[in-house]
Formats: sequence, structure tokens, C-alpha cells
Amino acid sequence: MGLSHDDYEVLFLGGGASSQFAMVPMNFLSADGKAAYIHTGEWSRRAIGEARCFGRVEVIAGSEDRHFSALPADIPTPVDACYLHYTSNNTIFGTAFDTIPDPGDSPLICDMSSDFLSRPLDFSAFSLIYAGAQKNIGPAGATVVVIERGFAEKGKKEIPNIYSYAYHVKAKGVANTPPVYAIYMIGLVAQWLKAGGGLEAMGIRNEKKAAILYATLDALDGFYRPTVKEPAHRSRMNVTFRLRDPSLDSTFLKEAEEAGFRGLKGHRSVGGFRASIYNAFPIEGVEALAHFLKAFASRYG
Amino acid sequence: MGLSHDDYEVLFLGGGASSQFAMVPMNFLSADGKAAYIHTGEWSRRAIGEARCFGRVEVIAGSEDRHFSALPADIPTPVDACYLHYTSNNTIFGTAFDTIPDPGDSPLICDMSSDFLSRPLDFSAFSLIYAGAQKNIGPAGATVVVIERGFAEKGKKEIPNIYSYAYHVKAKGVANTPPVYAIYMIGLVAQWLKAGGGLEAMGIRNEKKAAILYATLDALDGFYRPTVKEPAHRSRMNVTFRLRDPSLDSTFLKEAEEAGFRGLKGHRSVGGFRASIYNAFPIEGVEALAHFLKAFASRYG
Repeated sequence: MGLSHDDYEVLFLGGGASSQFAMVPMNFLSADGKAAYIHTGEWSRRAIGEARCFGRVEVIAGSEDRHFSALPADIPTPVDACYLHYTSNNTIFGTAFDTIPDPGDSPLICDMSSDFLSRPLDFSAFSLIYAGAQKNIGPAGATVVVIERGFAEKGKKEIPNIYSYAYHVKAKGVANTPPVYAIYMIGLVAQWLKAGGGLEAMGIRNEKKAAILYATLDALDGFYRPTVKEPAHRSRMNVTFRLRDPSLDSTFLKEAEEAGFRGLKGHRSVGGFRASIYNAFPIEGVEALAHFLKAFASRYG
Repeated sequence: MGLSHDDYEVLFLGGGASSQFAMVPMNFLSADGKAAYIHTGEWSRRAIGEARCFGRVEVIAGSEDRHFSALPADIPTPVDACYLHYTSNNTIFGTAFDTIPDPGDSPLICDMSSDFLSRPLDFSAFSLIYAGAQKNIGPAGATVVVIERGFAEKGKKEIPNIYSYAYHVKAKGVANTPPVYAIYMIGLVAQWLKAGGGLEAMGIRNEKKAAILYATLDALDGFYRPTVKEPAHRSRMNVTFRLRDPSLDSTFLKEAEEAGFRGLKGHRSVGGFRASIYNAFPIEGVEALAHFLKAFASRYG
């Protein structure tokens, strides 16, 4: 689309990504239009639910029939949509988009809450991206919004100022007192990222981290079952898996915790296990987890 | 109304008080109803502006004709309003409500952003109060909402979940990741308040702090001019004043800063000076400022 960095405004808004689920359609879903959504899990479900308060929503592709264990097989290009919305990484189900869906002539909007800043990204494909801070960016309580200024201006005018992207863009992000501590921390995280080689280096590191875990799980396929099979659909942030023998679940969790691995329990809505390996998680931790996975399998396999 | 603490839910929502300006009418201003507002300054102006996006707003009393230097002379009791909304303390203009306006049969809603926790308060008069954290409560990025559960349930159903008080009440404030750091800090501030004698002691201390400054300004009436004349309308949090001779303004500010008093400049929309003496500001600081005010007046008066 020939857009450059100068065409975008970066905002740090208060509240979490869930506010954006509602702000997006409030600004851009017109009364006589329709919004296109790709449905890949819990977060897209919530985004779609909020959008339905404002107008017509068309779910152009989804993978609910596969329990979200893969991305939709075919994603049609939307026609005459107010926008196309998708979730780039699905924390609960462990899927992620490796490539950017084709929005056709519609503006593209992405919830990048759980993989923003995890690797380099071509922003020029997007009219609006948003990301709750608390995965790779900083503490909970702020949401990063990157919006094309011209797109912001096209938003509805009769909405409250506080929910208007155009208003925040015009106010340069200080329409009201911003979440200053969270923003300060985001600044420190950005410095840390830069000092470590930037997004290029972070992307390589995250790729490597995920590859170690998936290779381990795939090699022990008789014992573990990675819930996402297609390599191109696998999240680099959240590696989800199950034990072939679920009667070992509680033993696995107990021994993992004793070995220092916390938070491995999968989201309550899906069960199983989940290794969340965001930017801050070190490669040494991933190697140690792979070692534990192998040892546990040889003990109980 | 015979309500007890058990009838209320305390929520810590992400975003600032400005989000509540819009959430209040989104939940409670019905299409065929009207909302009553008392207009006492910049924050009520914003709240009224946001409410107009949702329905009919009746400003039942205001003091714009007096440049907000006093509270409205007469506040009629609203009839058949969806709610009555007012701002208890006006940071920019230095006014505050000493007593609670009579809402009649209408639910009473108050923006207490700048005086919440500054003194004891009878919650049973209110259906909903809200307060941005960054004055007396904690860091920016969270807003405290105290809402009567039965009132929350009466809110509109067709609005997005994230803006629905009933939804947040039902989710006990964890419908999404809350601003955890801000909430942690609010907990520490609450402990500090309690250790210092609670709201009773804090109210006495704040009363004393404000009294020292107003007495000093009133005693030097030929040199300073407190912008709020009526004692019952004066804020205990923000003491606003001017110099009778504005040509001394920059000298005053310079010498005040040299003496260690920062942030005395009044809000850009009104000019003059403002001593913000929130809970965290010590009585010794107020005494030192009073001393400086006297010394400056004797040097230049």
C-alpha cells in the first residue's frame, strides 16, 4: 500500500486489549456495512461478540469445527468489508498466523496481543494493530495501538471521544492521563530489545525456542501429542500439548513444578498443557524444559 | 436508602476516569430517558459531552456564568432522570461539594477522581461512584468503581461486555487482565491510610491543611485573591488563587520554585496558581508554603 512509518500513530491507551474488541467496531463498523472476522479461538470469539453490538459481522473463516487446533483451511478474501479482523496468535489453542491474510481492498486489523514485538513485522499491510502489553511489551494496564492516521480519520464521528481513535491520534495519545508507569516500563523493555539485537535477533531466538520444543514433542509422538499438527499453524509463543495417557496429567504437572516449571497447565477451557515462551523466557529455560520432557517420557513411557 | 457495604461491588477497571464519562451513559442513559448533570468545570464538561452521544442530557445546574469560581447557587432536584451525575471536586477551578446534592428519586452518580479517600464518606447515598487512581489512590492506569449491584443489573444489555458494569460485577472485576501493578500499589496506599488512622484521621488532616492555606490567603487579601470565595465551596484538595498584581506572576513562580514548591502554576485554561494538596502531601509542606506566601507578600506587597 506504499505506507511508511510516518503514516502511523503509535498510541498507548489505558485498559486492556478487550477494550479494543469494542473500540474497533465502534469506530469502523458502519450501520449499513459489514465487518469480516477470522475466528480462531477465544479472543476472536470475544472480538466478534463485541462487534455484533455495532452491526453486521461476517465470520469469513473459522476453525471451531476443528476445536481451533489449526487455522482455517481456506480464508476467502473479503469483499466490501468495513475491515478484516484477525488474531495473529492464539494463546489458548497454540496456533498462529505465519503469513498475513489477504484483506483484498478492505482495511486489515489485527489483534497482536500475544506476538507483538516477537519478530520483525511489515506494518504497511495493516490499517490498525493493537496489543495488550502484558505478554512481550510490559505490564498489564496499557494497550499499544498502531494506527494509520488516514484510517483513524475515517472512523465514526458520533461516538464518545474516549473511544475515538481519531480523537486519540489528534491528542497524540495524551487526551487523558495515560498509564504512565506501564509506558515507562514499555520504554525499558524496548531498550532491552534493542540492546539484544532488536526484533531481528528476537525473531531468530523465538524461532529457535519454539523449534526446540516442537522437535522434542514430535520426536516423542507416542507419549506426547502436540495439539497443533501443521508446522505452519504452530505458535512460537504458546506451545500446547497433551499426554497420550491423560491419567499421567497430574503426575506430569507435579513433577514439572518440582523441577521448577510453573504455569504449564493449559487454559481451563481446553485442558492439557501449555508452555508460554514469550520474549522474556530464556532459551536456557526452553532447553531445560525439553530435557525434562524427554526424562519424563523415558520414566513413564 | 438503607444500603450496606454488602450491596456494593468494588471494581478496579483499566483506563482512566474518562472511560467512565462514556460508560455511565452507555449503561444507564436510556433512549427515551434523560440524564441530569451538574456542570461545575472541565471534567463535568467532558462527562456531559460524552453523555450526549447516548441520549438526552439535561444540565440542571451549572456555574459557567461565574467561570466555575463557585458551585451552582441552586441545584434543583431532578425528576424522572436516569441518573444525576456530578463531580465532587473540581481540580482546575478549586471548588468542591461539602454536602451531597439531593437526587430525589434518581440514582446518584459521582466522579470522585480527585477527592476519593480524602475523608470519610457515606456510600449509601450513591448508586455509582468512580475515581481515577492518580490523585489519592495510586498510580495512573486504574479507575476505582464502587457500584450498587442492583443498579449495575439495570444497565442496558445490548452494549459491549467490556463497557458493561453488570458484566464486570458478574466477573468480580477479572473479566479481563486487570491493571495488576496499579492495583498492588492501591493496596499499599490503603495500608498506609489505615496505619495513619484511616479516613477519619486523613479527613481531619486534609481539613487542617486546606484551612492553613485559605487562612493565609484570606489574611493577605490585598495581595492574593483566592479564586473561590465561599468557604463551603472551597476544595480541600486544590487551593486556587491569583496575585492581585499579575505582573508579579512570573516572579512568584520563579521564587516559589527556588524555594522548592513545584507545580504551583494553575491549569493552562484558567491561569493563576494552584496548590494541589492531595493525601500524600504533608502538613509540613503546607506550613512551609504558607510561610513562603507571607514572606513573598511582605517582600512585594
